Amino acid sequence: MQVLVVGTLGIDTVETPFGREDDILGGSATYASLSASFFALPGIISVIGSDFPEDYIKLLRNNNINTDGIQKLPGRTFRWTGSYKDDLNMATTIKTELNVLEEFKAIVPKSYRKIKYLLLGNIDPELQLKVIKQMDSPKLIVGDTMNFWIAYKNEELKRTLKYLDILVINDAEARQLANEPNLIKASGIIRKMGPKILIIKKGEHGALMISEKTHFAASAYPLEEIFDPTGAGDSFAGGLVGYLAKTGDISEPNIRRAIIYGSVMASFNVEDFSIRKLLKLKSNDILKRVKSFHKFSNFDINA
Amino acid sequence: MQVLVVGTLGIDTVETPFGREDDILGGSATYASLSASFFALPGIISVIGSDFPEDYIKLLRNNNINTDGIQKLPGRTFRWTGSYKDDLNMATTIKTELNVLEEFKAIVPKSYRKIKYLLLGNIDPELQLKVIKQMDSPKLIVGDTMNFWIAYKNEELKRTLKYLDILVINDAEARQLANEPNLIKASGIIRKMGPKILIIKKGEHGALMISEKTHFAASAYPLEEIFDPTGAGDSFAGGLVGYLAKTGDISEPNIRRAIIYGSVMASFNVEDFSIRKLLKLKSNDILKRVKSFHKFSNFDINA
Repeated sequence: MQVLVVGTLGIDTVETPFGREDDILGGSATYASLSASFFALPGIISVIGSDFPEDYIKLLRNNNINTDGIQKLPGRTFRWTGSYKDDLNMATTIKTELNVLEEFKAIVPKSYRKIKYLLLGNIDPELQLKVIKQMDSPKLIVGDTMNFWIAYKNEELKRTLKYLDILVINDAEARQLANEPNLIKASGIIRKMGPKILIIKKGEHGALMISEKTHFAASAYPLEEIFDPTGAGDSFAGGLVGYLAKTGDISEPNIRRAIIYGSVMASFNVEDFSIRKLLKLKSNDILKRVKSFHKFSNFDINA
Repeated sequence: MQVLVVGTLGIDTVETPFGREDDILGGSATYASLSASFFALPGIISVIGSDFPEDYIKLLRNNNINTDGIQKLPGRTFRWTGSYKDDLNMATTIKTELNVLEEFKAIVPKSYRKIKYLLLGNIDPELQLKVIKQMDSPKLIVGDTMNFWIAYKNEELKRTLKYLDILVINDAEARQLANEPNLIKASGIIRKMGPKILIIKKGEHGALMISEKTHFAASAYPLEEIFDPTGAGDSFAGGLVGYLAKTGDISEPNIRRAIIYGSVMASFNVEDFSIRKLLKLKSNDILKRVKSFHKFSNFDINA
């Protein structure tokens, strides 16, 4: 295995202006590992309840995802119910049921401990830290989080942040975490908390990478049809870390490329409900969209 | 003269989180012509009242802007009072006094009629159309507009749109004009109204160019300090058209470059109140920022 993905496996109910789907496969680890699987071999650390369909586990395995790190506990699986109105950038959470997540201990199987690329998907920051401490000598630690943890587990989150090479969050979360409206200033404040590099996801407006010495602004892939934004951020992070693991290169120019691959994975993901689009995707589709991304972002100043 | 700028000359009162300035020079023609003057020789078509300070006219002339097309009418100059809260992307208009603008006839002086590059800044679309009809054979017509004209002079605006090569508007205006929330779809609808190319300004999120065959997504220059966003859009359009006039090249790759120059002019403009920053600017500052823009937007996919 090349990428360890920590995060949730969940059962979602999602409503968008284009329809409603009940009890579909969701969770940060699902989207992130599937997205990463196009580039490298992922293993998942997560938890499910006794109600989690065996078919979903098979589906992950069929996509070359190692599931040895998935713990099954008595009780119900984590569930999320959310809706999107016309502004598809913004999810409204209707209900979150943590269920078995509350009992989860995040034990890393021995076979996972030498994995070099860690993706700490959106989950309780205490669990993220537990996983970090069980690993032998990771080369790159990338973490995600959300408004809930920033508000209610702020100290725990800050303890985890100290270990991160890259923090991937959205613009609203960056403003909230830094308590500063200007994103460039906010990035400086957050980098002082630990992460060497900050990648700020701005939905339809692209992503911004900021490190001590440099920054990189990428637009988003322009889409006419966005059906369901759920999992866009996780697909982004999965594609990013998967690409870095595949190439084994964490130089700045390669992180730029990885951001483009991540954006492309997110752009596919939102074109259908749940993971449907990712399941249909071929490697060649990804490469084609990366090339078209380059074509419409490229400009030359030496004329 | 190389660029004809139609628009308002105004006296603004602006409040931002960083301070308040009373009776400062404003108006779309002011920002656009000053910005264009770094690249080409602009002439202005506009109107002022008897209260307009002679010093402001001198200031324009001292920056190589031809003022023969500025009509002076009895009465007060156009005035705008606005404020920005923490979200600097969004101006709140407190008061608009059209004053002499209501009597303005937009007569194009004979010496202007052969100008090849037209920038129809934000002003009544009927006046924009009047100017177009007085010109001999413009090579490129670029127009701007705003929510007010979209709502209250929709038919007149649509008559003007038929003549445009490039329409430059912001994202909210594009959605309003097309009555469609998705920007890519909205662009298709607006291009059917006339403009061959649409450039959508997204403030801190950059700009999007969409034509029949291609699109280009540029990020914005990331700024830590934004003092006053007034005139950002006009500086953008002035830099864009000025650069195209200077190079005499309206090919797609050069329009991409022009968008970068426009973005750079806008990024300088917002760093101080009114036109203060533009007045201090040197050509070399612009070139340096264009280069740095390229550096932080550039990525390579052939690794």
